[in-house]
Amino acid sequence: MSSVHEWIDANRDRAVEELIEFLRIPSISTDPERSDDMRRCADWLARRLGGAGFTRTEVIPTGGHPVVWGEWMGAPGKPTILLYGHYDVQPVDPLELWETPPFEPSVRDGNLFARGSSDDKGQIFMHVMALESYLRQTGRLPVNVRILFEGEEEIGSEHLTPFIRKQRERLAADVAVVSDTAMFAKGIPSLTYGLRGLCYMQVEVTGPRRDLHSGSYGGASRNPLLALATILSGLQDRDGRVTIPGFYDSVRPLLDEERREFASLNFDEDGLRKEMGVEELWGESGYTVLERMWARPTLDVHGLWGGFQGAGAKTVIPSHCGAKVSMRLVPDQDSAAIGKLFTEHARRLCPPGIQLQVSDVHGANAVIVPLDHPAIRAASRAIEKAFGRAPVKIREGGSIPVVGTFKELLGMPTVLAGVGLPDDAAHAPNEKFHLENFHGGIHMAAYLYEELAGM
Amino acid sequence: MSSVHEWIDANRDRAVEELIEFLRIPSISTDPERSDDMRRCADWLARRLGGAGFTRTEVIPTGGHPVVWGEWMGAPGKPTILLYGHYDVQPVDPLELWETPPFEPSVRDGNLFARGSSDDKGQIFMHVMALESYLRQTGRLPVNVRILFEGEEEIGSEHLTPFIRKQRERLAADVAVVSDTAMFAKGIPSLTYGLRGLCYMQVEVTGPRRDLHSGSYGGASRNPLLALATILSGLQDRDGRVTIPGFYDSVRPLLDEERREFASLNFDEDGLRKEMGVEELWGESGYTVLERMWARPTLDVHGLWGGFQGAGAKTVIPSHCGAKVSMRLVPDQDSAAIGKLFTEHARRLCPPGIQLQVSDVHGANAVIVPLDHPAIRAASRAIEKAFGRAPVKIREGGSIPVVGTFKELLGMPTVLAGVGLPDDAAHAPNEKFHLENFHGGIHMAAYLYEELAGM
Repeated sequence: MSSVHEWIDANRDRAVEELIEFLRIPSISTDPERSDDMRRCADWLARRLGGAGFTRTEVIPTGGHPVVWGEWMGAPGKPTILLYGHYDVQPVDPLELWETPPFEPSVRDGNLFARGSSDDKGQIFMHVMALESYLRQTGRLPVNVRILFEGEEEIGSEHLTPFIRKQRERLAADVAVVSDTAMFAKGIPSLTYGLRGLCYMQVEVTGPRRDLHSGSYGGASRNPLLALATILSGLQDRDGRVTIPGFYDSVRPLLDEERREFASLNFDEDGLRKEMGVEELWGESGYTVLERMWARPTLDVHGLWGGFQGAGAKTVIPSHCGAKVSMRLVPDQDSAAIGKLFTEHARRLCPPGIQLQVSDVHGANAVIVPLDHPAIRAASRAIEKAFGRAPVKIREGGSIPVVGTFKELLGMPTVLAGVGLPDDAAHAPNEKFHLENFHGGIHMAAYLYEELAGM
Repeated sequence: MSSVHEWIDANRDRAVEELIEFLRIPSISTDPERSDDMRRCADWLARRLGGAGFTRTEVIPTGGHPVVWGEWMGAPGKPTILLYGHYDVQPVDPLELWETPPFEPSVRDGNLFARGSSDDKGQIFMHVMALESYLRQTGRLPVNVRILFEGEEEIGSEHLTPFIRKQRERLAADVAVVSDTAMFAKGIPSLTYGLRGLCYMQVEVTGPRRDLHSGSYGGASRNPLLALATILSGLQDRDGRVTIPGFYDSVRPLLDEERREFASLNFDEDGLRKEMGVEELWGESGYTVLERMWARPTLDVHGLWGGFQGAGAKTVIPSHCGAKVSMRLVPDQDSAAIGKLFTEHARRLCPPGIQLQVSDVHGANAVIVPLDHPAIRAASRAIEKAFGRAPVKIREGGSIPVVGTFKELLGMPTVLAGVGLPDDAAHAPNEKFHLENFHGGIHMAAYLYEELAGM
């Protein structure tokens, strides 16, 4: 083992240099103009896996962006793990808020700044380096490894479920390993056992057939933008509770034990407040902020558009406007059922005479991984070896839809061993990855393969 | 007189051709990138007035876009009129809804389609042609004429009031003439005696200092877009009444006589409904649609922006969002006072912990012109001569802020003799000008100068 970890330490600089190369490719999955870059990014990754010693790799087309697949099955009798990650990244707007360009990676104060550095290219690349360390130093891996790196995580993994269904045999494994989560805080290694689900909706409102001059027509027509405001403001009450009838019916209550464990983490609420730059933390009454972020469903509006958005004044009654809204879900809410309840409620809130179109952009159910599973215990040991202390057990507010799919279609649990940090600004300007966690994460991945071999 | 009107008829084609040349200049006053086009448009107009026989013309700089000024004072002992109009036009977005490009004028079915065709370049140009008809055929005008064509009407005439204050002597006149209004309906010539005022506000809302990932932070922060929706939806009630406390305190009630006169116009509500493309007309309860559009204050949201507006999904809690809102005002509401009431109410509606910035974009008070003024009676006769029937007396829902300024600073009333049509789509895609009204309007302007000479 030690030669593997020596190799990892000896290759620190190269690891950063190659990650920078990976991050330079603007693989924004939601942007149709980036489809060539997506393909280029998948090819780069497959080639790099080949360079690491993976003899079987393939870039497999889907209905959308391609999947990077690979396998090394040279450890008969040992468990097989499925390494999952995503090479696509979030859009970069508002671009003007980036201190350095999102696709020109820049190291400052021990952090690597670039879109995708933490979510998820940096965390994928930890595994690439860890796999290479074994293959170069020992000529083998401690476990059988299959690889599934997708290009549509940030846009709802639309083509991944059919892909998994079709490629069931090439993806069969005992456990999935995903590094796409964050530590509880800097210096506190963590093992994530719960993820929230998501129900992402688009609301579009149309009033008059054409834009009207508000001088001539003001007083004759409902205003679609006011109608949209009425709908949106009717989704949540003053106590931070979602007002969609039936929304909480399937919510699994937090266990007393969980509430105690969350409380024992002594979460730094004031630090969070400062990091977010808000005057006060706020949310559903009756719950702590950690409970609200990890284990309670929430609703957010992500975007609003309509009418005149330029400088100065334009006195128009716009014909059309819209909004993007999502709800984070917890066990046992069903994303499709919640989407229906949302749509029905929006229709009730919509004033008469206004046309409303509600569409389901994407969804995923929440996941809880059993803490007593051997793979989870193996991961706990690997994290402790790499970072010098046992991980805290946490949940995470975000969603990784594929984790639910792995359970439903491939019948396996998922180890969520991520080393991002809460202030990495995933999905926001100035995303960064803490380089100490990157290097520690490579060691962690190497220990993890070894520990999983003996599970 | 007849040689003047013969000349007008003989120059119909040239009038349209030259108007098209005028309309080709994209004089969008709100767009900083169009400032050269604004200057080019002012120069074109001054040159064209010179070509019509105006010996004194000038393009006068202001703090914003220039003013086109001119005078012909060769009728001693006769009244002086001040011709006002604006050569700037509204923005063109959404551009994709135009059937032909906004600055490539196109004649279809007796209408000239172009941005500014009706509002207000076409109506300015009627006067240019009418002035030329007299100067060419008789070598003189029946009245003294001063000209004030501004370039900032569509952005609130910010620099016009100081200009008028400074140039009081060069603008002194007995009556102002403005052709920037519409007929009641096609074939029904109209004289407008009332205009609504305007109070145009911008609302900006900031929550977290930076954009946040809704997975990680959903449940910890108020959502600025929901806060904006709450503010906007609190501005109007279900009965279409503005809910800002004190908003209606200074509203002059409609006279029974006016309500009877409006009712006698037999307004085609179903036609309006179809023209607007709405399922139902809607507004403040207790008033007819004409009363609501002409003589009752209203509130509209003109634009909304914030967060992710692209295709697909982005799970962001945006830091910032905003909206443009205006209120149409009636006598005796004061625009500045209403702006203050609006701001106070928005602050009351804003959830705690959210930063709210409200700014006053521009404003104007409503105007009523006395129907028994000799200039109004002269205009009534001119309209009847040009269009073959006496005009109906109407009010208009839009605002022409300068009319109030003329009264306050220059002490003169304004004749509002416009020949637009209600469906001209001013401020909207596919703006057009009915060519029959354009040609009739040139005759009307010529008759108007003659009638005003004898007032």
